[in-house]
Amino acid sequence: MSSGRGSIEEAKRLIEERVKGVKHRIIVMSGKGGVGKTMVVVNLADMLCIKGYKVSILDCDIHGPSVPKMLGVSRGELLVDGGSIRPLKARNGIEVVSMDFLLPNEDTPVIWRGPLKARAIMEFLSQVDWGDRDFLLVDLPPGTGDEPLSIVQLMPKIDGTIIVTIPSKVSEHVVRKAVSFVKRLKLPLLGIVENMSYFICPKCGSRYEIFGKGGGGRVARDMGTRLLASIPLDPRLSEACDEGFSFLSKYPNSDVYKAFDELASVILKTIQERKS
Amino acid sequence: MSSGRGSIEEAKRLIEERVKGVKHRIIVMSGKGGVGKTMVVVNLADMLCIKGYKVSILDCDIHGPSVPKMLGVSRGELLVDGGSIRPLKARNGIEVVSMDFLLPNEDTPVIWRGPLKARAIMEFLSQVDWGDRDFLLVDLPPGTGDEPLSIVQLMPKIDGTIIVTIPSKVSEHVVRKAVSFVKRLKLPLLGIVENMSYFICPKCGSRYEIFGKGGGGRVARDMGTRLLASIPLDPRLSEACDEGFSFLSKYPNSDVYKAFDELASVILKTIQERKS
Repeated sequence: MSSGRGSIEEAKRLIEERVKGVKHRIIVMSGKGGVGKTMVVVNLADMLCIKGYKVSILDCDIHGPSVPKMLGVSRGELLVDGGSIRPLKARNGIEVVSMDFLLPNEDTPVIWRGPLKARAIMEFLSQVDWGDRDFLLVDLPPGTGDEPLSIVQLMPKIDGTIIVTIPSKVSEHVVRKAVSFVKRLKLPLLGIVENMSYFICPKCGSRYEIFGKGGGGRVARDMGTRLLASIPLDPRLSEACDEGFSFLSKYPNSDVYKAFDELASVILKTIQERKS
Repeated sequence: MSSGRGSIEEAKRLIEERVKGVKHRIIVMSGKGGVGKTMVVVNLADMLCIKGYKVSILDCDIHGPSVPKMLGVSRGELLVDGGSIRPLKARNGIEVVSMDFLLPNEDTPVIWRGPLKARAIMEFLSQVDWGDRDFLLVDLPPGTGDEPLSIVQLMPKIDGTIIVTIPSKVSEHVVRKAVSFVKRLKLPLLGIVENMSYFICPKCGSRYEIFGKGGGGRVARDMGTRLLASIPLDPRLSEACDEGFSFLSKYPNSDVYKAFDELASVILKTIQERKS
């Protein structure tokens, strides 16, 4: 890779070469953090694997990379092989590459200025050897700033974008910006996933909309896109993310499982319709 | 303000002049978004007002500015008076300035590169006339990147930093980075607020740790700081944020009220002890 000014174009060419064995590239983003974007990425990967697909994840959230933790893999296992970075193998056959692997230790904050970060992301991406996969899910940093912009510009042929949000009106305000961002960059938009939609008390069966009601559906309707799935709150889901086990493999009869089954099915259907 | 290279120092001097009538400047940050940082800022402001203090809020979260919405004020009301920007008056006597006021319309994403954003923040801050206030609460963008760094560097004499998190282990990983960020920049750290700590079913009284248990306390202990408060989940709190009314004024007998009462008391005590 050239060290001069032309290295961005060179990196793009290298990255394109590296991901050409991946059939579908899907970006998962959110207007703001903490809406459960990474949980959605990891469980969507599990569900696509359960359905028989080969799935890789690229974790680009440089400030809070948590994909490896949620998959139960540790950072020490990344293989570098003759100038190529090989993704880590995790549960259900998922393979993963995380920006976390760039950081010196777990408690180190990434106090990097924009251009430095953009370059690190670029150099990192141009070295990852993805291999033959059905899906690459890209977990983008939250927001509509430098980092999502840099990564989207580096990643060739994106098949679809999913925007994760929560039901509250305050989040609606922010997710609209994410939809505008996707439209402005002319990315294909698959639709919106509403997370933390409701909570059913396991003891008495009462239903609570803890974070408000219907925000995902309202944004989808107003912005001319669709609500792909509504995922309920479940304390076992938080536990699975914390402990690094597959919620979907352990709780196949849950409402959360049903929601991810619907989500994966609608994505597969949409992508197949587009290809034909 | 000079338009040359020296304008950062000039801006810092101007900003220092502008905030000198503010007795205490407190920064509220989080390792990642969506942990309820802005909800904490707004309700802490309400509680300090209830206790008789004059409070202003600076909303610096340029990607998802939601302080005005939570306070029930609209963006049209910002006063510009002879080169000075006057904060908006909101409920309970709170005054607010938001980066939201810089944006052309609500759905516009801020696709700005780092240096552009830093300049906009600097120019904006150097024009705000805060007046005589007891507290300025600064709602920092989530993470430990460019924007929190820029703002922290511009803001003189910070009395304390509060880090907001949620109980899950995955969040712990990220909040440690925020604590390191604060320590590295030699900011005084007040402690950690754990939000979304638990949910009590209003019907049957069952208690659920929906987002896991004890993360805030573990980080506080491990990183040598204190857990300032644990705030429970309450659907009415989400409603108050969405509708822009004061939760604390409406529900003075709630667990959420008690938590903010404790939080404000411990902050007041700590600051008074330091001054004496």
